Amino acid sequence: APVRCSGRFLSLFDYKTEKYIVAKNRKVGLLYRLTQLTILGYIIGWVFLSKKCYQETDEAIQSSVMTKLKGVSVTNTSESGLLLWGPEDYVIPPQGEAVLFIVTNFIETPNQTLGYCAESPKVLNGQCQKDKDCDEGKMVVAGNGIMTGQCLKKDENSNGTCEIYAWCPIERKYKPQEPLLTNAENFTIYIKNFIQFHKFGFSKSNVLEKTDNSYLKKCRYDEVLHPYCPIFRLGDITKRAGYNFQDMATFGGSIGIMIRWDCDLDKSSYCHPQYHFTRLDVSDSKKTIASGFNFRHTRYFKNAAGESYRSLIKVYGVRFHIMVHGKVGKMSFFCDMVLLYLMKNGGSYREKKFEKAEITQDNTQEDEECSD
Amino acid sequence: APVRCSGRFLSLFDYKTEKYIVAKNRKVGLLYRLTQLTILGYIIGWVFLSKKCYQETDEAIQSSVMTKLKGVSVTNTSESGLLLWGPEDYVIPPQGEAVLFIVTNFIETPNQTLGYCAESPKVLNGQCQKDKDCDEGKMVVAGNGIMTGQCLKKDENSNGTCEIYAWCPIERKYKPQEPLLTNAENFTIYIKNFIQFHKFGFSKSNVLEKTDNSYLKKCRYDEVLHPYCPIFRLGDITKRAGYNFQDMATFGGSIGIMIRWDCDLDKSSYCHPQYHFTRLDVSDSKKTIASGFNFRHTRYFKNAAGESYRSLIKVYGVRFHIMVHGKVGKMSFFCDMVLLYLMKNGGSYREKKFEKAEITQDNTQEDEECSD
Amino acid sequence: APVRCSGRFLSLFDYKTEKYIVAKNRKVGLLYRLTQLTILGYIIGWVFLSKKCYQETDEAIQSSVMTKLKGVSVTNTSESGLLLWGPEDYVIPPQGEAVLFIVTNFIETPNQTLGYCAESPKVLNGQCQKDKDCDEGKMVVAGNGIMTGQCLKKDENSNGTCEIYAWCPIERKYKPQEPLLTNAENFTIYIKNFIQFHKFGFSKSNVLEKTDNSYLKKCRYDEVLHPYCPIFRLGDITKRAGYNFQDMATFGGSIGIMIRWDCDLDKSSYCHPQYHFTRLDVSDSKKTIASGFNFRHTRYFKNAAGESYRSLIKVYGVRFHIMVHGKVGKMSFFCDMVLLYLMKNGGSYREKKFEKAEITQDNTQEDEECSD
Repeated sequence: APVRCSGRFLSLFDYKTEKYIVAKNRKVGLLYRLTQLTILGYIIGWVFLSKKCYQETDEAIQSSVMTKLKGVSVTNTSESGLLLWGPEDYVIPPQGEAVLFIVTNFIETPNQTLGYCAESPKVLNGQCQKDKDCDEGKMVVAGNGIMTGQCLKKDENSNGTCEIYAWCPIERKYKPQEPLLTNAENFTIYIKNFIQFHKFGFSKSNVLEKTDNSYLKKCRYDEVLHPYCPIFRLGDITKRAGYNFQDMATFGGSIGIMIRWDCDLDKSSYCHPQYHFTRLDVSDSKKTIASGFNFRHTRYFKNAAGESYRSLIKVYGVRFHIMVHGKVGKMSFFCDMVLLYLMKNGGSYREKKFEKAEITQDNTQEDEECSD
Repeated sequence: APVRCSGRFLSLFDYKTEKYIVAKNRKVGLLYRLTQLTILGYIIGWVFLSKKCYQETDEAIQSSVMTKLKGVSVTNTSESGLLLWGPEDYVIPPQGEAVLFIVTNFIETPNQTLGYCAESPKVLNGQCQKDKDCDEGKMVVAGNGIMTGQCLKKDENSNGTCEIYAWCPIERKYKPQEPLLTNAENFTIYIKNFIQFHKFGFSKSNVLEKTDNSYLKKCRYDEVLHPYCPIFRLGDITKRAGYNFQDMATFGGSIGIMIRWDCDLDKSSYCHPQYHFTRLDVSDSKKTIASGFNFRHTRYFKNAAGESYRSLIKVYGVRFHIMVHGKVGKMSFFCDMVLLYLMKNGGSYREKKFEKAEITQDNTQEDEECSD
Repeated sequence: APVRCSGRFLSLFDYKTEKYIVAKNRKVGLLYRLTQLTILGYIIGWVFLSKKCYQETDEAIQSSVMTKLKGVSVTNTSESGLLLWGPEDYVIPPQGEAVLFIVTNFIETPNQTLGYCAESPKVLNGQCQKDKDCDEGKMVVAGNGIMTGQCLKKDENSNGTCEIYAWCPIERKYKPQEPLLTNAENFTIYIKNFIQFHKFGFSKSNVLEKTDNSYLKKCRYDEVLHPYCPIFRLGDITKRAGYNFQDMATFGGSIGIMIRWDCDLDKSSYCHPQYHFTRLDVSDSKKTIASGFNFRHTRYFKNAAGESYRSLIKVYGVRFHIMVHGKVGKMSFFCDMVLLYLMKNGGSYREKKFEKAEITQDNTQEDEECSD
């Protein structure tokens, strides 16, 4: 019993290892080694060479986008007369953001003043047959003003619309037939994109170093001929996204411009942007009632008497959304060490393991003499 | 020694495997199999059915949001008179973005011209007792203009404020008591959201296919009755976020509208948006001095002589931030293979492992005869 | 044979375990235990204490940013006369977003009207020698208007420019020498940032609770003295980003303001914002032709006759981009359990494993008596 006790205490310093069986059969052995080689080949070939696992990557891209439009278009309508549209007018907002709207079509309602007029007959809740239908002081749902309580009719028997307090005359309701800014597809957008990866202290611009000013004045982006020209023709963008610009221009739409940076800092020459274009406002159901993109904005004026009047401008157009993605890879010290370890020390480690086992065991199968 | 050497060379083709002990005890065996079954059940039940591990997922959602407000409100103030506010006025910016500000309250300072006037006594750094307190040519910190070097006082003994070059008259400083756009909570916001998952070539809109135009003209979002109506009443949004619209409307605030898409492409019918609402400008400390949201904008005019004057409009309101999240899942070929492999080949694989061991070992415990 | 069959059936309930060898050698045993202790120490020290693995984290930060500028500047130019710039003028857009542009320099072209004038000689495609060079009805590429088909020359032999239909007079082309809003570096930006982590129901603001109104009226951010003051002087921001404000102000640029939240909810006091500043529009190539940031906007007016005229304002300035990152950590129940399990049950689990093995094996190496 006392022997056992001291044994129990001593067993704290026992070394326990799994017992192995060595099968001395060449066929099985060959198969076993082939399997090992396959796994090693897979690790080196796929993980290291194809997936570049030896590289440390940084996907936390920090990006800044600035845009500038060029091009003008003339429109001639009965309401607005002959008008020249420059970037300061057709880019909304004008400040060169990564999300920008380009006017391609518009309906202007000039010289609106606050006052009393009849609601549009196309507004469902503005229709009336008697004064009681027009709830005084309430707004017309989806309408243009506040009801005064009067129903305006041409004659006793016809249907009318409620009188409203609004900016009069109210906007004509009609579907535009074709885009008024006919030249919009020839406008160009100059996209300046600066990226930074802090982990590696790496920064770059899509306006490549070799680019000179004269090149920027003439070039237009083309996947094959000018893949690094940062100036894009609007018509080309929609075409690359799979749509016709004139079709989109009438009612408006939304286009995504993706800039992808896949940088390999080990090959110092390789860090170039790639551009992709896609229409964003589409869904699987082809004919959607939700298509198109428009909004209204105003310009306020005052006459000599200090009274306000305004122009209401409903604009249709294409919204561009510039999205930047990317990652950068660089030879990693840690990965390097793992690689070296696997290559160099793999064998010696294995030897050590067996050494330990050999210390106390002299008659196990692992120490069998090589006798067939 | 030469025998050992050739043995070392040959040992390259040895097959080494762990040695197993088989315990022939029914109780232990049953426990062992039960444990195995539990693990298998867990894998099938939890990983495959509950977590849908067999599905490949894409979380790189590409989203486009367009918004449109409807509704009008009338205000009547001494400075601005009777005014009608439509979406073109109260939505800032007006272009239907995913981030938009709705005016619910305002202070207008009309007919400002450039000139000389006294700084507001509420501006700390604008107060003075003598001319020396007003540093000529320096701006008043957090003030409205540039000091001229004169201290304007009512009489010799009272405190005064510095004379400044500014847009005069300067804005009155007072805290609004209640929102002027009383009807703002009845405004509606129509949110069009288009999503795309490129991995599966899948796109969808929150304006569902079955939706017809007449439904869109009447419906209002309701979790239970109209969960797929894309039109939201502002008052309902703040209520769902846990706040009263009129409380937020006086000083302004910020609301997040989250659209969550969880799509299972294997069940083709299941891909619908879910809406959540939360107030963004709150912190754990209930009474924060940082609450509220306002900013100033201007409208510039010129009189007949070409001289500029302007209206300064301080607007309070609610900023809405529409955020889209989502992922899509589809039966994965790879996962499918893993599943099949586990089910079909699990057994045969086990058999092979033991076959190998049996080749050279005929007297180990694994080959014990079945004799109790 | 029948005995084997029933044996095969019974073997379904066999318990199979790996066979271990216990090496009774104190040196090896000590080494073995030391290795175990090292691993345990590593787990507790590095994983738990340094990496805080015991904490559950939430990186899905929900953030809302509001900004407000203070400060005025006076400019005096021949075109615009004496002008006072307040935040309502120099912040574009004015609505206090997380991305905002501050005007530091400008070129105004007042009183433009639609009409006919000569294209700028600096526009490449506007130069001409004869009328045929000016393609009637076509826009001048990168120019200001639509060509009328006439070539305007001083005399027969000189080069001229095409006559265009445009907003005349067209903008003078010149490079500004120094920023006109000389006071812009003293402007201050007040950044209100609200964050939420839904997983833990945690929300906080960068305007800390202890902050009182009088502190907010005087404080300026300083890494050491006022690290939690949310008010930043523009000149300090660019300095911290490593650039001189006056250099950036002439042609414009882009600055990123990063707010980092690293919150440990177990130490309730520790959840403070950290600010970092970086210039975004830089690339490794020092002298880039892409530097600078400017855009044009307009103000429209109407004269007494109702004819439109406008001011075209080209503004240069600094765009600030406020980015919020963060994660929050909290003691996790799951992790806690793993910890407890490792500490308490580790031993008993080991015992159980050996119990099972002992049931049927009485003469294996594991049961060796302790006799050296």
